[in-house]
Amino acid sequence: MPRINFQQQLLALKDKLLAMAALSQQALSLSLEAYLTGDTSLCEHVKGIEAAINAAETEVDEFAYDLLAKEQPMAIDLRFILAVIKINSDLERIGDQAANIAQRTIALSSVPMIELPIDIPYMGEKVGIMMRRAIQSLLEADARMAEEVLELDDEVDTMNRLVQADLIDVMMKKPEISEQALNAIIISRNLERSGDHATNIAEDVIFWIRGSDVRHKYSLAQAE
Amino acid sequence: MPRINFQQQLLALKDKLLAMAALSQQALSLSLEAYLTGDTSLCEHVKGIEAAINAAETEVDEFAYDLLAKEQPMAIDLRFILAVIKINSDLERIGDQAANIAQRTIALSSVPMIELPIDIPYMGEKVGIMMRRAIQSLLEADARMAEEVLELDDEVDTMNRLVQADLIDVMMKKPEISEQALNAIIISRNLERSGDHATNIAEDVIFWIRGSDVRHKYSLAQAE
Repeated sequence: MPRINFQQQLLALKDKLLAMAALSQQALSLSLEAYLTGDTSLCEHVKGIEAAINAAETEVDEFAYDLLAKEQPMAIDLRFILAVIKINSDLERIGDQAANIAQRTIALSSVPMIELPIDIPYMGEKVGIMMRRAIQSLLEADARMAEEVLELDDEVDTMNRLVQADLIDVMMKKPEISEQALNAIIISRNLERSGDHATNIAEDVIFWIRGSDVRHKYSLAQAE
Repeated sequence: MPRINFQQQLLALKDKLLAMAALSQQALSLSLEAYLTGDTSLCEHVKGIEAAINAAETEVDEFAYDLLAKEQPMAIDLRFILAVIKINSDLERIGDQAANIAQRTIALSSVPMIELPIDIPYMGEKVGIMMRRAIQSLLEADARMAEEVLELDDEVDTMNRLVQADLIDVMMKKPEISEQALNAIIISRNLERSGDHATNIAEDVIFWIRGSDVRHKYSLAQAE
């Protein structure tokens, strides 16, 4: 296969991954909408998207494996394909988080909806921005933009901790709404984990572009 | 580099991965011990192991990338290296789960320890078995043993759901122990997720040996 064809194949691989990213973003935002409105019919939609994501994951992986096997790429092309394999797995896990939120929403449909003193929509917005920037940084090969995702992750982690503390208080004062409060805690965690996956994607973009592994450098700095 | 040397390098890569697996197993079992005994000094130990896991992850990844770049492996060798890259990431995430459990344990040290009507040690044991079998199936290239891990995962998922239902009841009846109950719920989820990672590892072993992607076939069957 001539080399120019290989570059086209890499672009095709990127397109497939971007299509999968769109599915994951859609699944997450729909699942949140389902939770916030209590509209369980959206949950079926989320399940359908999750099935599509799973199929897309296998397809992207197989495409990437084929390119590795047939083209024996070097340096930046090799790093790109390896980054695609990892990003693919993170996108699929974002789909899992969305499916979890949808599942919670269905479970919650048997108990009354209540107002809780937390701001899940705002958190969901932040995570949405993280995902969009991570994908955009992949599209534009922009390592700087990827770094911004890593910064946003700290904010989302902090929000998650606050949600949890506030809702434990709620549970102690109003045990009758423990189930709703617990579900909100778990959904907040689902969002926080989705943010972690967006962070992983951003790190993989940086690895692809710069060839250095940023993972634990950042997470060690965060742990201080 | 002669081909025989390449086979030695693959064995060296496997050894590195197995050493990392041992660290992850140790982190998880220590973190559970810390939680169950309330001995927070163990939590520092878990943090130390997690740092070692993070360093090992980077090392395994770089080794695997080098082999891909220099040796341009085909077929089963290529699949092996790709499986290593994925398993490596799952082992690191098991380390994260252990670190989460340790963090919870430290948070819990400010509230009284109480008995809860759930069996975390038994669940931890099941997850430990899943991890050992997943690693063993890698060591012995045994796809059948890997399949057993997938079956165990259903049991752990069920346990996690029961823990959650039981503890919501507890929280409603005894709001003053909401914090302890919530932490138990989250630790149960950490265990369930560790089981998911062991399942991913088993699936990667099957992919390596048989060359087929089992991922969503099993998960679709489970979802029925």
